[in-house]
Amino acid sequence: MGSTYGKIFKIATFGESHGAGIGVIVEGCPAGVPFDTDFIQAELTRRKPGQSRITTQRKEADEFEVLSGVFDGVTTGTPIAMLIRNEDQRSKDYSHIAAQFRPSHADYTYQAKYGVRDYRGGGRSSARETAARVAAGALAKLILANEGVKIQAYVSQVGKLKLEASYKELDLNETENNAVRCPDPELAQKMFDYIDGIRKQGDSVGGVVSCVAEGVPAGWGEPVFDKLHAELGKAMLSINAVKGFEYGSGFDGVSMLGSEHNDAFFVGDENVVHTRTNHSGGIQGGISNGEDIYFKVAFKPVATIMQDQESVDQHGDVAIVQGKGRHDPCVVPRAVPIVEAMAALVLVDFYLRNRTSKA
Amino acid sequence: MGSTYGKIFKIATFGESHGAGIGVIVEGCPAGVPFDTDFIQAELTRRKPGQSRITTQRKEADEFEVLSGVFDGVTTGTPIAMLIRNEDQRSKDYSHIAAQFRPSHADYTYQAKYGVRDYRGGGRSSARETAARVAAGALAKLILANEGVKIQAYVSQVGKLKLEASYKELDLNETENNAVRCPDPELAQKMFDYIDGIRKQGDSVGGVVSCVAEGVPAGWGEPVFDKLHAELGKAMLSINAVKGFEYGSGFDGVSMLGSEHNDAFFVGDENVVHTRTNHSGGIQGGISNGEDIYFKVAFKPVATIMQDQESVDQHGDVAIVQGKGRHDPCVVPRAVPIVEAMAALVLVDFYLRNRTSKA
Amino acid sequence: MGSTYGKIFKIATFGESHGAGIGVIVEGCPAGVPFDTDFIQAELTRRKPGQSRITTQRKEADEFEVLSGVFDGVTTGTPIAMLIRNEDQRSKDYSHIAAQFRPSHADYTYQAKYGVRDYRGGGRSSARETAARVAAGALAKLILANEGVKIQAYVSQVGKLKLEASYKELDLNETENNAVRCPDPELAQKMFDYIDGIRKQGDSVGGVVSCVAEGVPAGWGEPVFDKLHAELGKAMLSINAVKGFEYGSGFDGVSMLGSEHNDAFFVGDENVVHTRTNHSGGIQGGISNGEDIYFKVAFKPVATIMQDQESVDQHGDVAIVQGKGRHDPCVVPRAVPIVEAMAALVLVDFYLRNRTSKA
Amino acid sequence: MGSTYGKIFKIATFGESHGAGIGVIVEGCPAGVPFDTDFIQAELTRRKPGQSRITTQRKEADEFEVLSGVFDGVTTGTPIAMLIRNEDQRSKDYSHIAAQFRPSHADYTYQAKYGVRDYRGGGRSSARETAARVAAGALAKLILANEGVKIQAYVSQVGKLKLEASYKELDLNETENNAVRCPDPELAQKMFDYIDGIRKQGDSVGGVVSCVAEGVPAGWGEPVFDKLHAELGKAMLSINAVKGFEYGSGFDGVSMLGSEHNDAFFVGDENVVHTRTNHSGGIQGGISNGEDIYFKVAFKPVATIMQDQESVDQHGDVAIVQGKGRHDPCVVPRAVPIVEAMAALVLVDFYLRNRTSKA
Repeated sequence: MGSTYGKIFKIATFGESHGAGIGVIVEGCPAGVPFDTDFIQAELTRRKPGQSRITTQRKEADEFEVLSGVFDGVTTGTPIAMLIRNEDQRSKDYSHIAAQFRPSHADYTYQAKYGVRDYRGGGRSSARETAARVAAGALAKLILANEGVKIQAYVSQVGKLKLEASYKELDLNETENNAVRCPDPELAQKMFDYIDGIRKQGDSVGGVVSCVAEGVPAGWGEPVFDKLHAELGKAMLSINAVKGFEYGSGFDGVSMLGSEHNDAFFVGDENVVHTRTNHSGGIQGGISNGEDIYFKVAFKPVATIMQDQESVDQHGDVAIVQGKGRHDPCVVPRAVPIVEAMAALVLVDFYLRNRTSKA
Repeated sequence: MGSTYGKIFKIATFGESHGAGIGVIVEGCPAGVPFDTDFIQAELTRRKPGQSRITTQRKEADEFEVLSGVFDGVTTGTPIAMLIRNEDQRSKDYSHIAAQFRPSHADYTYQAKYGVRDYRGGGRSSARETAARVAAGALAKLILANEGVKIQAYVSQVGKLKLEASYKELDLNETENNAVRCPDPELAQKMFDYIDGIRKQGDSVGGVVSCVAEGVPAGWGEPVFDKLHAELGKAMLSINAVKGFEYGSGFDGVSMLGSEHNDAFFVGDENVVHTRTNHSGGIQGGISNGEDIYFKVAFKPVATIMQDQESVDQHGDVAIVQGKGRHDPCVVPRAVPIVEAMAALVLVDFYLRNRTSKA
Repeated sequence: MGSTYGKIFKIATFGESHGAGIGVIVEGCPAGVPFDTDFIQAELTRRKPGQSRITTQRKEADEFEVLSGVFDGVTTGTPIAMLIRNEDQRSKDYSHIAAQFRPSHADYTYQAKYGVRDYRGGGRSSARETAARVAAGALAKLILANEGVKIQAYVSQVGKLKLEASYKELDLNETENNAVRCPDPELAQKMFDYIDGIRKQGDSVGGVVSCVAEGVPAGWGEPVFDKLHAELGKAMLSINAVKGFEYGSGFDGVSMLGSEHNDAFFVGDENVVHTRTNHSGGIQGGISNGEDIYFKVAFKPVATIMQDQESVDQHGDVAIVQGKGRHDPCVVPRAVPIVEAMAALVLVDFYLRNRTSKA
Repeated sequence: MGSTYGKIFKIATFGESHGAGIGVIVEGCPAGVPFDTDFIQAELTRRKPGQSRITTQRKEADEFEVLSGVFDGVTTGTPIAMLIRNEDQRSKDYSHIAAQFRPSHADYTYQAKYGVRDYRGGGRSSARETAARVAAGALAKLILANEGVKIQAYVSQVGKLKLEASYKELDLNETENNAVRCPDPELAQKMFDYIDGIRKQGDSVGGVVSCVAEGVPAGWGEPVFDKLHAELGKAMLSINAVKGFEYGSGFDGVSMLGSEHNDAFFVGDENVVHTRTNHSGGIQGGISNGEDIYFKVAFKPVATIMQDQESVDQHGDVAIVQGKGRHDPCVVPRAVPIVEAMAALVLVDFYLRNRTSKA
């Protein structure tokens, strides 16, 4: 269990790091959506390994094949299966961990849960699984774009290097112009150099991805458990290496007073209701209010490092896990399209759910 | 949609702030669990209004009635319905907001979504709904206690007053000894005085609730989307007024190096595998590893304040919302049992799901 | 598990025959539906016990209370909880079966599954649970009526007394004019006398309920597993005492040739596509085609009889179960509103699901 | 929606008759199940086209590839994806129906629902989709076999040729010895000749598949909506061309008296409780009682016939649909492994669900 997401626009992903491939079935996609293969491939390319010297050197083209659900260039309303074959699967690189548990990886917990595990490259727990999410998320983006919704994520922190400006002060079109995906070019260069240094040490470091969704109309989200921000939080926390999520005023909002924090309503152009501030992050009572939705996602330093580490093996004996294999010294640059994809999956599901809210 | 939680131990809540009552159906509770009415009532009492002068003065006994699913003192495996009647429903207090949108409440978004709303006390969006969660969560706690799992939450921040010690350095038995539910008695007094001052100003302030679950064995949680921390995050973010969630090293882990952050494994007493540090927060790859699970939940200042505020009404005209009604100047003291209840609901569901993980 | 039905218009029922009461939460009902209390009560009255001398003599008014989800006479989009208190609970009548298993009841299987059971009147397995379905189904009917959909069920067989005419040849308005709910008054009288004779013998007999849904537009239902007739079948088979389901040509269609059975399309009035015959029963490929949907439901003779029966007890010893308690000698007259309610619940769910089928 | 089945052992199928292929993801399969590739392939071979001259002449090897979830010969607990490529896709055969609606097919209803359809061979509505079910069902059978459960289906009627003997009087090992899959060799030959005659006429005919599951222990199934027979009914009705379902005494039970129909309990060998008769079909109150589970499934004559038929086209004009393409003159021989697969999917899900029924 656990490999499906969504209530209406439902995705089911499958695949391991070093198996035959990675894929996804999208069920519940409305019929008649123009299926833009190039766009979906471009999104996969944003996530693929080997983009620059600060990402893993695994070579994967990440080209996808559509197996079903699309006919004459549009979706047909039936399940859309997409498959990405694995190519560069140096499984031998992993034989040393067949019986060892890498610290802060999922080796030990999968073994405890299932009594068996595909140890090659982390198997199902590998972030390679997120390729399937990006493919499905790209389709979700196509639907949302048609509704006027635009989702943009960017790197706002690497280690202690932090972007202080809010998304409103930034030119988010700059994001894709550098390898780090930070919209501030100067800071991006510093981040790049920092990550590159970390890489040379055989170490890793964490970071933060910020994200903003513009154009979401009022009314998306559901009361009580499936609040819009609760689903966003779950979706983000389900991405590999994520440790925290906050939206709107977030943890900083804790020390504000209600009289400062409350977002006063006013009537703006074209008689649309707006709020003067947006500490709510575009969500009130779990439902979008028409303002920008923005949030932050914290990523830990990746567990794979090129250093020897103390551990144990399956027999309960002490083991030294060697630093081998390929890894990202900092995941946040490649996490940007993943965060966007998950945000799109959350939003498109609420968009469709909301079609049933009124008689 | 949105009022159900859980895959096996499923809860469905209902009820509005000023309707007939609040309740919950628990489906999927195993048969044969001794149903400890007193314990469940005690948990409800921890959450009920009117506990001290720093909580809302609404008077509700919050006594619950069991309508089904329990026979001869044990659960029967069939749905357990629990009902809490509303008593102190001064609906007239809310007539002034029948057509106005209170800033940072859910009035506007419910109206946008549904085209109609029960405006009395926020209707379904009121935190009164959490009583139903506490009742169901208490039952979950009873099951977990039998598995050796203990969940304890406490207030770790109010405004800028912050408890710096980790849960390991605190005596959590102190938590229930003061009205703030902070286990550091001195800080608790400062927090109390601070909240009381805020109350007198007719204002509100935010806070943080920390929580630790001890005794969870390795293997709970699911891969990919339903990671243990992702469900915890969703569950916490679904509580009224929550703006952020982090577990283990959280947002601070961002600036650590992998070589510092990784939790080395070792073999401890009775040949049990442990980790030397616990930056993972007891969860690796979304599955518990047997260490303590700990996390933090950020609450914003409550939107209800006793001050006039700029807003609009349903006709799109400017309106001044008056400060009326009863409110909590700071929700975190009463949020402690709610956080525990939601954690219990997440954990009991994974406990039951895990029964199907092996052949 | 098992006490919920529906994907969008979701119902969760609770309650036992001799507990505090029976109830239902309806989640996913669109906001703005006028809540016609009188109609819902009238539907419950059609199902209630004690209607004539051929139904059980248990005395229950079956009056319901709305606990949530309705405000100012309309649904609000939030969960609607309805409660029916039990009144005439002669639990003492059942003390003799506390440790015995009544033949062809659920006593033995519940005990095997749960290790514990509420033996009073069959507990959760009692057909009293269907009152909750009728309440929820009545609400579904109100929504469907607004879409032009009319659902009518009637008794078409009791024992070997069989109504040979099809629904098209009958005046279904006659159905409610007799205690048996058979639209052929002469046959109804024969059925009544037959059932009354069975009752006097302390025995029971089976029957068939037929049902037709008119006005369902083309497009309701889903491909593959959730075909419209598959959900209808599940819904009908979930009613107590049901042993079979067929729609359209049903079991008789088996011996037809394709050239006879195929329903030729033609263009009728107002350019609407129709079929010349309707062996498909209004459903093709699991999706409604705009023709009448019709089906049959077979009910076994009720297991409760007023005769001594061979059985065993919980200790594995031979036992003679005595004929005690109150019972329906033939369930089909009271099953008519239940069949309609379940059909309405299936159809309203597909109506809402279909809102998401096109871009 | 509609392409998933199961709560714990969940399958999601995809694929069209003339697209790239057909496949399935199985989620929730326990880890550690030996994955018997040969057995699964053998089950697919039982269903594949071109088995004899009374089945469709489409040539498909129906070889499957495992894409994920299996490592070192056992399941790993993660999603198992299986893919069957389409080979013999004469899409040109279908160009004549690009704009026409074939009578009693799903062409018209898919068009009405989605506004677009993959017309080649019926697209998603083709029975080719059932290959995916058979693959998943074969895996379910492997798990059930380990629990002592054996599922056997067979043809019991073709047109008016009916097998009167009950499964107890038959040697079900004979089933696979003839092309019709009827365990009575003499009747099988008559059925074969009859179907062959129908084929030569370019017509089709219906039939009945009977099925028995032996070895199911008491306790599988859930109360109320998810009764074991209700899920069996839904699963069977979801198979292409099915019109009816009955279990145990079925429609014939209607005219029995309770005193005849009730299954008296007695204590048999090894102190196991049994029933003297089995009109209940092994299920009481929706839960298995340890006796054999048996049921019947009615299939209509296939809609594809080699004759011209009156119809309409997408523009609402009269059209004559020509008899072209390949088809099965009678589906029941190939339906036997499909019925078994669906029964296995229902049972394995309840087997796993039942692991959570007791504390």
